[in-house]
Amino acid sequence: MPILNKDMTLCISLAGRPSNIGTRFHNYLYDELGLNFIYKAFTTDDIAGAIGGVRALGIRGCSVSMPFKEAVIPLVDEIEESASVIESVNTIVNDSGRLIASNTDVEAVSALLGSHELDRDAAVLVQGSGGMARAVVGAFRSAGFGDLTLAARNESAGSALADQYGYRHITAPTPGADIIVNVTPLGMTGADADAQAFDDATIAAAATVFDVVAFPSETPLITAARAARKQVITGAEVIALQAAGQFEKYTRVALTAEQVARAAEFSRS
Amino acid sequence: MPILNKDMTLCISLAGRPSNIGTRFHNYLYDELGLNFIYKAFTTDDIAGAIGGVRALGIRGCSVSMPFKEAVIPLVDEIEESASVIESVNTIVNDSGRLIASNTDVEAVSALLGSHELDRDAAVLVQGSGGMARAVVGAFRSAGFGDLTLAARNESAGSALADQYGYRHITAPTPGADIIVNVTPLGMTGADADAQAFDDATIAAAATVFDVVAFPSETPLITAARAARKQVITGAEVIALQAAGQFEKYTRVALTAEQVARAAEFSRS
Repeated sequence: MPILNKDMTLCISLAGRPSNIGTRFHNYLYDELGLNFIYKAFTTDDIAGAIGGVRALGIRGCSVSMPFKEAVIPLVDEIEESASVIESVNTIVNDSGRLIASNTDVEAVSALLGSHELDRDAAVLVQGSGGMARAVVGAFRSAGFGDLTLAARNESAGSALADQYGYRHITAPTPGADIIVNVTPLGMTGADADAQAFDDATIAAAATVFDVVAFPSETPLITAARAARKQVITGAEVIALQAAGQFEKYTRVALTAEQVARAAEFSRS
Repeated sequence: MPILNKDMTLCISLAGRPSNIGTRFHNYLYDELGLNFIYKAFTTDDIAGAIGGVRALGIRGCSVSMPFKEAVIPLVDEIEESASVIESVNTIVNDSGRLIASNTDVEAVSALLGSHELDRDAAVLVQGSGGMARAVVGAFRSAGFGDLTLAARNESAGSALADQYGYRHITAPTPGADIIVNVTPLGMTGADADAQAFDDATIAAAATVFDVVAFPSETPLITAARAARKQVITGAEVIALQAAGQFEKYTRVALTAEQVARAAEFSRS
């Protein structure tokens, strides 16, 4: 076993409920690439103290998950546009004591819209209005999609987000869209694990089903979409790509698609 | 290579100039004992932020070296007697958010006085008056040594320390003691690396030469003592035993003498 050494660069994550995915993803690639880094997930009940610790201990990178994505904004020194436009941070780089916040979710979703060759003229239905929904809607706008309806029970958040990008807001999803995207916790491990984020009729009418939920990645929605032989995009794909973006920011090492795929597979095994 | 996991317990050290010894010592034993722990050395220019990070991130243990051994005292929740009596902390245990400070140096030095079978009636000369000198003098007193002279250029610190234990204070070492102990930085890597902490006459008159300097452990004083065929006790022995004490506090796992010896040898290799 290779024993750790004092000069290793530490990167961490902060999440309310840490998973093992990021820890395995990053350490797998550190090992494959021979980088003197280690990565470990943490939780905290004191986000200000934790970010203060990142600064004081010289922790190089800090991935940020729910429920801290907005709370860290006043705790950093600089917010890049990727995070400021959606008011949601998932990445903090410690550049010699200066904490720079960004968000790799928009870039990850944009990459998936391209790699799955989604039609920019398709009618899109997105459900959700939280920080990740802002990233997803922003990615569709950046990719040139013109016809998007945002379904969100939260009237003020939903209409504000739709208005920001010139899209429509409704309070509950209805069938008819070509591309349907879930960005709510419906289907996620926990209280909502059994919930199918869109009903069968909405799935039947669609060509593509995209679920951002990553734990599990085989949600009731994805299972139903596979049964109905729809094109699917899973949260596992999102989480791998956003982690790859973080990896590149922390290490300044660019990854190949094959490396990302290997690390993603390992991280879920 | 075993990939790290999110549930690993992190222990760290904080030092002005971190060495690799603690990182290798602790991780060697985690591996040998199959403990899901990792240990890494850090430095900081913000000790309050760093200790706040220990608390907020749930870091289980924090070893404290120069120059932070006194500075952490107001930052913890409880000071055990081993640290309060010498006003010097080398160990912080995070017990579910409650930071408990202690000092394993006294116990380590006491153990060495016993294992090397030093004569309690011998005349002892200790040079130094810092936090580690307080630990060494306290250990001699606990072990029942009655004849100890403290040589310290710092008049107030030297006389206060000598008075605390009912010993004598002088400002510069003179030959004649049976056991001579260096607890100054003389001989340590850096500006004082070439300095021999006691002169040849003082070494010649002694039976036992004890140097607390650990980097390097073969200081000019130890080299001269070995050449003069004196009994020697090195800083490497102190650092291994105090690290073993920290290990047991962090993990609640007791170590055998053989395990400590293996880890100490590995840590310096």
